Amino acid sequence: MQDLNETTITPAVLEQMARTTDPRLRQIMDAAVRHLHNFAREVNLTPAEWLTGIKFLTEVGHACTPIRQEFILLSDVLGVSALVNALHDKGAAELGTQTSLLGPFYREKAPELPLGACIVANPSIDPITIYGTVTDKQGNPIRNARVEVWQTDELGLYDLQKDGGAGMDMRGNFTADAQGKYHFRTVRPLGYSIPLDGPVGQLVTAQARHGFRPSHIHILISAPGYRELVTALYFGDDDHIGSDTVFGVSASLVVQAKDDPTSPIQGLQAVRYDFQLGKDAAQGTGRLGADPSAVVPAH
Amino acid sequence: MQDLNETTITPAVLEQMARTTDPRLRQIMDAAVRHLHNFAREVNLTPAEWLTGIKFLTEVGHACTPIRQEFILLSDVLGVSALVNALHDKGAAELGTQTSLLGPFYREKAPELPLGACIVANPSIDPITIYGTVTDKQGNPIRNARVEVWQTDELGLYDLQKDGGAGMDMRGNFTADAQGKYHFRTVRPLGYSIPLDGPVGQLVTAQARHGFRPSHIHILISAPGYRELVTALYFGDDDHIGSDTVFGVSASLVVQAKDDPTSPIQGLQAVRYDFQLGKDAAQGTGRLGADPSAVVPAH
Repeated sequence: MQDLNETTITPAVLEQMARTTDPRLRQIMDAAVRHLHNFAREVNLTPAEWLTGIKFLTEVGHACTPIRQEFILLSDVLGVSALVNALHDKGAAELGTQTSLLGPFYREKAPELPLGACIVANPSIDPITIYGTVTDKQGNPIRNARVEVWQTDELGLYDLQKDGGAGMDMRGNFTADAQGKYHFRTVRPLGYSIPLDGPVGQLVTAQARHGFRPSHIHILISAPGYRELVTALYFGDDDHIGSDTVFGVSASLVVQAKDDPTSPIQGLQAVRYDFQLGKDAAQGTGRLGADPSAVVPAH
Repeated sequence: MQDLNETTITPAVLEQMARTTDPRLRQIMDAAVRHLHNFAREVNLTPAEWLTGIKFLTEVGHACTPIRQEFILLSDVLGVSALVNALHDKGAAELGTQTSLLGPFYREKAPELPLGACIVANPSIDPITIYGTVTDKQGNPIRNARVEVWQTDELGLYDLQKDGGAGMDMRGNFTADAQGKYHFRTVRPLGYSIPLDGPVGQLVTAQARHGFRPSHIHILISAPGYRELVTALYFGDDDHIGSDTVFGVSASLVVQAKDDPTSPIQGLQAVRYDFQLGKDAAQGTGRLGADPSAVVPAH
């Protein structure tokens, strides 16, 4: 038996976990304990502070319900969701367009729409056109790629946040043509705040963060033989484009709607975005979401 | 706006938290994010694994009730409670006897008993005597030091775990005499398992750990002008003396009951233990517990 002090406690814990049967669980918990202990030592965490942390984690757990995942929200605002996705992309055999967070508002069986259709049932502002081409990394068109899109409306709400989520709106599935070309109409979505009424919202508020995600359109593109692409297009003139609370924005995904003589629909402002899919290496996708149950509309 | 990858995400998160008003919260969260990200990078955490982790933390949160604190139990089995206490001791102006975990079974207003009394109402085995002296670091007796003791019975149960916690038993408060001497009778407590019926128990089981705490007697000693001493005496012949699941044992706290001609009560085996109190530096105590709601008796 050894005497445990603030440094010897760590190897003692690792030793007690060393017989873990699952080698990956052992590796993960070994690292978790080392980093957790290093954290406590670095800040010289006091018992009272750790009890505050325990209370916070307990409240995060209690805020988790079947329709709200406060721990994923915590993961999002601490950048861990984005980090884990980045690590996942790094391991890809071939990477196409930059990825982004899936978020919790993806729905299966969204309406199948013809190219050019508007995904918003009753737009209250002028629609815009999103168009472009889906190709492989070498620029070869991917014929009939499946393009699934979803977004908030012009007030910052997803369909799931309206009328109890009864209807499908602001979403649709398209099939690119034989040249990989796609286009659809929509309204410019409004950015929105993550839910600030729970413990994670309290943390974000105490950190003097605004809590907003910038305006964006979610896009999921798939085609046989290619890595599923989960990404989003972000509108560059949003006030929060440089400070997304969940760190989903990449420069290569920032777009601007403008007059565009090459748009397939004239008379509307348009965004052209060409997507590239990497070759599939039979990896699981299992991407992490952002902003679970983001039920607070922007302004 | 920068492009975020698996390394640049970390400074981006830190920057977004940099305006935190409370400097200590800023320092703690800055370190928490860095260590959490380093953990994810070190093990190349996958989205599926992180979702498993999120699910585990959610279950720990849901297992927390007004009478059970599963996050403290998690902290205990990962050695964080012991580490935070060790850091707290390191900051003490003067440290006496080695400390140990307070645990969740301390109760206020335990019976005030005369020296020599037995703290167990109906012992089913031969009692033993615990005796010794309370002094300062220089060996000067501390007159009338307050000695509070509590423990499990010979079956591994605290009073709070019997009859709904209705009665006080296996605990008592003593006042040392003018020479700092104390003695009381008790039964040798049985070690016990932490609760294995929750998510933390599942983790400990997956780690091939036995989950037991060795037999011990909790002791809290206080006197005006001295640092409150929260500690415990551990019985060296317990099978789990070298592998306490919550890392509370120190070599200097290990004892053995034996025939002792200098014991104040002859005919019973005895443990002599002399305690030292450090000078008070007006630090808060706020020690972290071990084994919250440890309701599973040993064998």
